Amino acid sequence: MSNAKLIYDCPEKNADLYYAAHFEAPDAVLFLEHHGKKILILSDLELERGKKEAKVDKILSLSHLVEKAKKRGAKGMIGVIDTLFKDFKIKKLTVPQSSPFTLVDALRKKGYKVEAGEHPFYPARTLKTPQEKKWITDSQKAVFKAMALAEKILGESKIKNNILYWHGTILTSERLRFELEQFLLQMGFHNTMQPIVAGGLQATDPHCIGSGSLRAHQTIIVDIFPRNDKTRFFGDATRTFCKGKASAELKKMYQTVKEAQEMAIAKIKAGVNGKTIHQAIVDYFEKKNFPTQVIGGVKQGFIHGTGHGIGLDLHEEPVRINTGDFVLKPGHVVTVEPGLYYHKIGGVRIEDIVYVTKTGCEVLASYPKKLEIA
Amino acid sequence: MSNAKLIYDCPEKNADLYYAAHFEAPDAVLFLEHHGKKILILSDLELERGKKEAKVDKILSLSHLVEKAKKRGAKGMIGVIDTLFKDFKIKKLTVPQSSPFTLVDALRKKGYKVEAGEHPFYPARTLKTPQEKKWITDSQKAVFKAMALAEKILGESKIKNNILYWHGTILTSERLRFELEQFLLQMGFHNTMQPIVAGGLQATDPHCIGSGSLRAHQTIIVDIFPRNDKTRFFGDATRTFCKGKASAELKKMYQTVKEAQEMAIAKIKAGVNGKTIHQAIVDYFEKKNFPTQVIGGVKQGFIHGTGHGIGLDLHEEPVRINTGDFVLKPGHVVTVEPGLYYHKIGGVRIEDIVYVTKTGCEVLASYPKKLEIA
Repeated sequence: MSNAKLIYDCPEKNADLYYAAHFEAPDAVLFLEHHGKKILILSDLELERGKKEAKVDKILSLSHLVEKAKKRGAKGMIGVIDTLFKDFKIKKLTVPQSSPFTLVDALRKKGYKVEAGEHPFYPARTLKTPQEKKWITDSQKAVFKAMALAEKILGESKIKNNILYWHGTILTSERLRFELEQFLLQMGFHNTMQPIVAGGLQATDPHCIGSGSLRAHQTIIVDIFPRNDKTRFFGDATRTFCKGKASAELKKMYQTVKEAQEMAIAKIKAGVNGKTIHQAIVDYFEKKNFPTQVIGGVKQGFIHGTGHGIGLDLHEEPVRINTGDFVLKPGHVVTVEPGLYYHKIGGVRIEDIVYVTKTGCEVLASYPKKLEIA
Repeated sequence: MSNAKLIYDCPEKNADLYYAAHFEAPDAVLFLEHHGKKILILSDLELERGKKEAKVDKILSLSHLVEKAKKRGAKGMIGVIDTLFKDFKIKKLTVPQSSPFTLVDALRKKGYKVEAGEHPFYPARTLKTPQEKKWITDSQKAVFKAMALAEKILGESKIKNNILYWHGTILTSERLRFELEQFLLQMGFHNTMQPIVAGGLQATDPHCIGSGSLRAHQTIIVDIFPRNDKTRFFGDATRTFCKGKASAELKKMYQTVKEAQEMAIAKIKAGVNGKTIHQAIVDYFEKKNFPTQVIGGVKQGFIHGTGHGIGLDLHEEPVRINTGDFVLKPGHVVTVEPGLYYHKIGGVRIEDIVYVTKTGCEVLASYPKKLEIA
């Protein structure tokens, strides 16, 4: 009896599969790890590209396996897996927690013992190698180049009746976002979700991507999180700007978020529980008179977690700094992004990425934190 | 006892969830359909945006449910679902086939009867409404505008030592792709996978996106399949070009693919089995002396299916025209994309989208089919 790992998914959507096989495809492929050997099963359509691109020990032809299965009277993907497992004498397997229950039910019906693997399926990918750290840093550097472009455009824009104009026409969230995306494309990045350029009340809703005219004297949140086409690693950073004059209240809020982020970064090191860092930020905000509470039926203040793991996935589990229990390890890479959101003042979020070490953490790439743009 | 539908997934990755709730989010959300009412359960972070954007009957606060569950001693997402189901007196539920088996195992352990729904979970979305047909047509029109740009750039390029130059520097796959992507961005589209611009031998590998210098007198496949930011519907079209002079063999191959596509489109109508259309193309290619066979260890000829359903997903099941049994219905929208791939000649693929009717099919938007570009 022999144990194996099985993934049946689309590499484009499954970072574990990409991590294991280094192969991109728009449709589902079958991947097997058995006795430490990686095996990829590909259709005729993917077979030749797979031989060139995939980093696995063996590539098998799906159509050959379908034929073999047919001869044994077995049908469909389950028939293929069954045929393969009988040849390899596999009876027990571990699959990702996200595996479709219909697949698992069918395998169990055939007598296989199926168990859930860890999440992520390859936990090693949460502990970044020097190469992976460099790839994330490179992505983050590109994010900051885009951030500099956003700041430049806001700097060049003119204020008329509190509305921003750039090169003579209204500067909308969409227009600024297009400039950022075009620039990222040029640098070899794609956005799996569009960057956030959200002003005013929109900035108080952390996942609102923003639309319409940008305005002076209020917060504009710019949150950029693209994926590198080649390395497939994400960057992720946020800065908050105010074109024109910020109110005293907004300035105080900005300063408080900035201090909270610095304090959090100073506390992060291996062995620390993420929830103590998150709680320290909550406490700091309270102390500075920025509490989190329901105002007019809407929760306002610090309404999200402090940070999430990042790598081949933008939001990478289980690394989180929030209310949950999670102890940081050397090699974890995590965002640090406290924010405050009040309908009356606006939204402020400042986000960087850090690499956790035994003694502290390293901020990967850097960019100034400055609210007002003249 | 009462039946319900449950989806726990990320709307960005799950078209059924987006279809049901009309809500975009980068993280997993909980969606319930019960007695015909749609209910979305959102975190504090998504709650306000959900109220504005989602098209559901009710939005519940996840944090309220977590509190409620905690009071009953229940933990995690399973605790939340259990709390919700007890309140709604739900004991049986239908979930998407892709639902994580760990979720389903946990629900079954709590005594719930969990069954797999159809695929797609909302089969209605395979039968396009006039509005949806229009959205796909609009996306396809944008694809053809991008195709016209590709043709224009190839037309403007100069040949030196068989290599293409544009505005004085080498025209690579990457450079042409960047121009297309930038143009699509401007029109309000994103590419979930990068467009294919593949020349020469690369064009014989249908999923190779292409890299390096483009060359004269050989095939260049341009396959563009972006998603509209607003409607979320995909377009998808392919044309094959040859800058300079095509060989007599390549011309014959192009003509054969073109005729095969026209023949397939003429055969498509409701009630027809997709496999008869696919087989007709295979037969036609054989008759014209373009067989599909293993040459030098590599399968060459017509090495993929004829078409796939398209809509909110780029490859939309179960609508397929290939070797499988599948009967077309009025309202299905499917690509028609025969191709021939031989290492000695090159790759040719021509792809359009059709809308299936009772009496035939309508090609959605159109673009010339011309191989040589002077």
